[in-house]
Amino acid sequence: METRLEPAAPLTGTEVARLDAYWRAANYLTVGQIYLLDNPLLREPLRPEHIKPRLLGHWGTSPGLNLLYTHLNRVIKARDLNTIFIAGPGHGGPAIVANTWLEGTYSELHPSVSRDEAGMARLFRQFSFPGGIPSHVAPEVPGSIHEGGELGYSLMHAYGAAFDNPDLLVACVIGDGEAETGPLATSWLSNVFLNPARDGAVLPILHLNGYKIANPTILDRISRGDLLALMRGNGYQPYLVEGDDPATVHQLLATALDRALDDIAGIQRHARTTGDSTRPRWPMVVLRTPKGWTGPRVVDGTRVEGTFHAHQVPLGGVRRNAEHLRMLERWLRSYQPEELFDATGAPVDDLAALPPRGDRRMSANPHANGGKLLRDLVLPDYRTYGIEMVRPGQPAAEATRVLGHWLRDVVRANPDRFRLFGPDEVLSNRLDDTFEVTDRAFLAAREPGDEHLGADGQVVEVLSEHLCQGWLEGYLLTGRHGIFTSYEAFIHIVDAMLNQHAKWLKVTRTIPWRRPIASLNYLLSSHVWRQDHNGFSHQDPGFIDHVVNKKAEVVRVYLPPDANTLLSTMDHCLRSRHYINVVIAGKQPGPTWLTMEEAALHCRRGLGIWDWASTDEGVAPDVVLACAGDVPTLETLAAADLLHRHLPGLKVRVVNVVDLMRLQPESEHPHGLPDTQFDTIFTTDKPVIFAYHGYPALIHRLTYRRTNHENLHVRGYKEEGTTTTPFDMVMLNDLDRYYLVIDVIDRVPSLRTRAAHLRQAMVDARQRCRDHTRRYGEDAPEITGWQWDPEAATHL
Amino acid sequence: METRLEPAAPLTGTEVARLDAYWRAANYLTVGQIYLLDNPLLREPLRPEHIKPRLLGHWGTSPGLNLLYTHLNRVIKARDLNTIFIAGPGHGGPAIVANTWLEGTYSELHPSVSRDEAGMARLFRQFSFPGGIPSHVAPEVPGSIHEGGELGYSLMHAYGAAFDNPDLLVACVIGDGEAETGPLATSWLSNVFLNPARDGAVLPILHLNGYKIANPTILDRISRGDLLALMRGNGYQPYLVEGDDPATVHQLLATALDRALDDIAGIQRHARTTGDSTRPRWPMVVLRTPKGWTGPRVVDGTRVEGTFHAHQVPLGGVRRNAEHLRMLERWLRSYQPEELFDATGAPVDDLAALPPRGDRRMSANPHANGGKLLRDLVLPDYRTYGIEMVRPGQPAAEATRVLGHWLRDVVRANPDRFRLFGPDEVLSNRLDDTFEVTDRAFLAAREPGDEHLGADGQVVEVLSEHLCQGWLEGYLLTGRHGIFTSYEAFIHIVDAMLNQHAKWLKVTRTIPWRRPIASLNYLLSSHVWRQDHNGFSHQDPGFIDHVVNKKAEVVRVYLPPDANTLLSTMDHCLRSRHYINVVIAGKQPGPTWLTMEEAALHCRRGLGIWDWASTDEGVAPDVVLACAGDVPTLETLAAADLLHRHLPGLKVRVVNVVDLMRLQPESEHPHGLPDTQFDTIFTTDKPVIFAYHGYPALIHRLTYRRTNHENLHVRGYKEEGTTTTPFDMVMLNDLDRYYLVIDVIDRVPSLRTRAAHLRQAMVDARQRCRDHTRRYGEDAPEITGWQWDPEAATHL
Repeated sequence: METRLEPAAPLTGTEVARLDAYWRAANYLTVGQIYLLDNPLLREPLRPEHIKPRLLGHWGTSPGLNLLYTHLNRVIKARDLNTIFIAGPGHGGPAIVANTWLEGTYSELHPSVSRDEAGMARLFRQFSFPGGIPSHVAPEVPGSIHEGGELGYSLMHAYGAAFDNPDLLVACVIGDGEAETGPLATSWLSNVFLNPARDGAVLPILHLNGYKIANPTILDRISRGDLLALMRGNGYQPYLVEGDDPATVHQLLATALDRALDDIAGIQRHARTTGDSTRPRWPMVVLRTPKGWTGPRVVDGTRVEGTFHAHQVPLGGVRRNAEHLRMLERWLRSYQPEELFDATGAPVDDLAALPPRGDRRMSANPHANGGKLLRDLVLPDYRTYGIEMVRPGQPAAEATRVLGHWLRDVVRANPDRFRLFGPDEVLSNRLDDTFEVTDRAFLAAREPGDEHLGADGQVVEVLSEHLCQGWLEGYLLTGRHGIFTSYEAFIHIVDAMLNQHAKWLKVTRTIPWRRPIASLNYLLSSHVWRQDHNGFSHQDPGFIDHVVNKKAEVVRVYLPPDANTLLSTMDHCLRSRHYINVVIAGKQPGPTWLTMEEAALHCRRGLGIWDWASTDEGVAPDVVLACAGDVPTLETLAAADLLHRHLPGLKVRVVNVVDLMRLQPESEHPHGLPDTQFDTIFTTDKPVIFAYHGYPALIHRLTYRRTNHENLHVRGYKEEGTTTTPFDMVMLNDLDRYYLVIDVIDRVPSLRTRAAHLRQAMVDARQRCRDHTRRYGEDAPEITGWQWDPEAATHL
Repeated sequence: METRLEPAAPLTGTEVARLDAYWRAANYLTVGQIYLLDNPLLREPLRPEHIKPRLLGHWGTSPGLNLLYTHLNRVIKARDLNTIFIAGPGHGGPAIVANTWLEGTYSELHPSVSRDEAGMARLFRQFSFPGGIPSHVAPEVPGSIHEGGELGYSLMHAYGAAFDNPDLLVACVIGDGEAETGPLATSWLSNVFLNPARDGAVLPILHLNGYKIANPTILDRISRGDLLALMRGNGYQPYLVEGDDPATVHQLLATALDRALDDIAGIQRHARTTGDSTRPRWPMVVLRTPKGWTGPRVVDGTRVEGTFHAHQVPLGGVRRNAEHLRMLERWLRSYQPEELFDATGAPVDDLAALPPRGDRRMSANPHANGGKLLRDLVLPDYRTYGIEMVRPGQPAAEATRVLGHWLRDVVRANPDRFRLFGPDEVLSNRLDDTFEVTDRAFLAAREPGDEHLGADGQVVEVLSEHLCQGWLEGYLLTGRHGIFTSYEAFIHIVDAMLNQHAKWLKVTRTIPWRRPIASLNYLLSSHVWRQDHNGFSHQDPGFIDHVVNKKAEVVRVYLPPDANTLLSTMDHCLRSRHYINVVIAGKQPGPTWLTMEEAALHCRRGLGIWDWASTDEGVAPDVVLACAGDVPTLETLAAADLLHRHLPGLKVRVVNVVDLMRLQPESEHPHGLPDTQFDTIFTTDKPVIFAYHGYPALIHRLTYRRTNHENLHVRGYKEEGTTTTPFDMVMLNDLDRYYLVIDVIDRVPSLRTRAAHLRQAMVDARQRCRDHTRRYGEDAPEITGWQWDPEAATHL
């Protein structure tokens, strides 16, 4: 099939001239932002004081971005397309800013940066300047859903944006540097999950400018045949545009975009009229142009244009080097600004008329400010899905399976705006009730025997946490809702992506025209304590620690201890806005501790005393047993049970924590419990034995300013584990019921001698359990058969 | 070019029978491990009590792994190859364990698991059993350098192992599930960095068994044409082997391996005799066989073999379901164990003779126990590379550039065992002196104008942190040394990989036959405080927090404050073994605080009082100014300077911390400072203002058990930032010198009224700096021109 375009001339001479002028205007405005403090229209010869003292920014990628933006404007207008633009090389920020100013959007949102000479001066000055705007396609840039700071996520954001947006075209520029990253390399095959009937289209544009910071790029240096084979292997029809002569490239690029958009229209028409859901061969464009094109060719004897030397600021010494200053002026004047801007500094009419109007402008498209389009989810009343608690601990339920009943109905009620993403774990995480009402989206070959696979699925599963995260981000940023369910240990794979999304959320809170989006919800249900099939490599509860480093106003962490609290928590998360919610809940059968009403109240409070499990009768306890997480809660209640039986006079208070952020001081987190309440619950002077789901240090970190911190003793995961039984796992980490009782005895002074016998019994019980496990390969009956016994709780 | 093999018959009937028998033996031993507690040779009919109570393990991938291992044995022996085996689907642990037992290695290392009936019983029982061995190809498995728990890293480990090992062949099985991950997707093009003359060979074997946990795989469901195009696009010559008839597949696989190994031999011969360093087209194998091949075809009416139902344990109810028990027995007997094992339970002679001998066995190859081959680096005396300190603060030096002089000579002295890996930042991190003696390895097209690019480079740069990490891990695990240099923010990209490597190091410490390997060294030199070109998305110092969650015995974190301390630190790291060392040091010009001798002593101590900057004259200070990190150290000394000038009577102690782990109690970390020493240095009751490089919470976490913790006040990064000046960045996070002085005034009771005037002056100074920056776009001269003034230090 044809991939390399023959010279063709779809554009008239006037059209070429106009596109070229627009491109020059964008390039001029880009260079201006990098260099100029003043004299924006070069009304006088450039002088050193017109130049910024610190030259920051990335020129190399900018002319290519400008060229693509310009040409996309042409086809959007010609075809009345609904299009957003994703700049993979987001460090080309000044290019995109330039275009949003040319389109007028920038000035509409920031009136002081008007579309005239004064505004242009501000536009230039503010770029990468203290108190101004950042260097990337950050949230401050209209039309952006992708900062492009950390490379690799452009194409997955593009596909996420296209899901369930049948009229949307996402034009996604991928830099050849970015293309070397793992996340990008696996993004190409996202087309396996894109339904041409139900979803929008993604047009990937691989921009080969040949260099990174100081190295050539791989894709530019493998053979053209291999490159095209790679793209075809990924399911695309590549159109190759190469050149360094603007007039030729304008014609070639116009040809390529016309072909690609014709292809897309044909694919969508076919799928939408015939119902054929075979995966089509989508078009993509490969654009090979020089890095830093139209910039200085040679500086101080070194070739710059077309090399990595053009990556950032090609002329570095402008303020103190007269020759550099002259070169900069020549460079700027080479764009002929006098033809591009009128006497007021506004783009001349012919240029102003080029881009589309209103919301069709890529910088004003509401899909790129997803909160504007966000509609609440239709949420069935979660209370009616709860487990009926018979007595504390009964019945046993698989929390995620119970959640799955409700999620099934959430899926059904929101076919156009809700998706579940996961790395092939929806079934194993027992959310398979959702398959009663939807499939897993899959457009490659489907075969007899496949289960729950279809073109129309609202569940999207791929063995790449990066893709799950990136697709969901793109989906949320364009105004929809979703959940990412994953193994707890492997969610660290997206630590870096989480950072970037958290930063995006933080910054957008302060941008008035950015509207809040739905929260990013993680459901981590194959957690550290239950990796029976796997072992040590699958055990890591540290994602919580990572998340807690982000700004308090955007992160929330929940550890519901049973099915009913999980339902309440997820309902809350799906209603919330602009947060990152991390929910950790087991999929194995576990006790039901609370009625639905109690669960709702407990979740609303975030933490609380479980009176029914306490023996302090509302007065000062001898010891507080606190817990967070399903397995630690089970062990804590079993420990409380042992204490009730064997030390009936001991006043034990049981506290359960669902919302981890309640532990922090009010000053640190909006959910933080006031000190007086904290002191009331945790006492100011009694030992607190805290059984925690994750690394113990986090609980200290959250509570070290609390009055009673020095009496707080935390058990949690201490990086000990292997493939073994569930109870052996908690024993390996000293989180088991017997060890918690030992902790109590060791920390309540009055027990040290009085309970010496019980202490030894606990030591013996651990050994007995260990021996049983090693002999029979399963946990001892005293563990697996244990139930909360209300008779032992003195208040019953 | 031909990719699909025609039926051919390189093997005699006897050879097929023998390979098939060996394969059956491995399969039998695999199933035995998953199911059997006893009766290993089926000497009596299977009874429920012979079955494990918890059935754990992954059958689906195992027959494919066994087939490949068996066939590789044939070619290794026939060609006397030096080969290691990497199992991407590492959950197929029982398959690899089975093979190591057949080869005898397992019994040599674990004499109780002898190669006889009793040993076989132990082999079966111990698998995924409490007190036994884990389910994956974990460090406990001889011949493994790759656990395969977290998917995606097999092929990068393979390439890392092959670098600088010209005689080594790395056979790498990639599961089609794993192939969906980002890290794996970008690993294919690792061949761009492999030099056929100097490096070994990697033979990728893509195993398409078609399914993951519950979904089909992408690569199995795209067209064969696309799949082969993808592999060709990645630079390979694919050989496709497909089938479900063992006799046919044996012949096809033998043909494919012979072809591939002939290709490799030809490629290496050509490169090594002609000196031609053009990137060759390396062979690879695509093997498409049914998931769970040879297992139960249908269970309870559901098709299992060849579907995702074969992923883990195909027959789940064996202990209580008589029909399942019968099926298991039929399945086990289908391998005809009586033909495979002799009366003692050992493999029959014909099988025992199949694998290679001694170190040629993949399970005994010393490259897979790299510590056995590890040779110390030749390290030039770093002291002779130090900066000559004129007076504290002088001269200014770029720490990494100074380090680069030394690294250049390390590179030169260790051409066969030392590499620098990085995502295109060696130059920008100012380590470019290394290019005086080496190039960046690059085998794709090289063009005029390329700089420091060559086939033989010891520097390896690719825009993928995953590849850098994975290659380095493979390089270290096979007994060599290296450094990974990266942006601090983006090193989070490999958080999950770091976890896996840390777990590997932890476990191998307790396996007597595993020998210590060189440490994994990170040099993070584009750090949070100096992202002038980039901004908020590039600012994240949280990698330290992530690392500190790992086992104390394997992690170390260093924050050298200047060039001389950086030299001393890196020398220490390159000599260390079996750690993960994180070193954070700036690349921008910064003060030199210590002479080389002082630096060496300071690093040896890990932290210490800087007397020359203190005014407490060895007695009790009024306040302690502590600091860790180059920028915080600068601000702290500037704050000390201000205090000396303006409050000359105040007794200030300055403490600098290089080795962060010194802050922890002795009980928590081997580097922990004893409490008495800590109390002597940080006092037990005076305010400590701690200026820290990263998130402040970490310092609290490390010190909360110290006597004086409640007087500790930490400043650090609080997630505030944008593209701005260096001093504005520290002001945004309240880490600047003026704020530190304010902190002192607010926390030393005697100063609250006495220094009110100075406090206001500090507030004014901050405003003045902010105004200057916003006006002129650069830091105020009082900041950029500041130098440590010894006249102000009262003891001078």
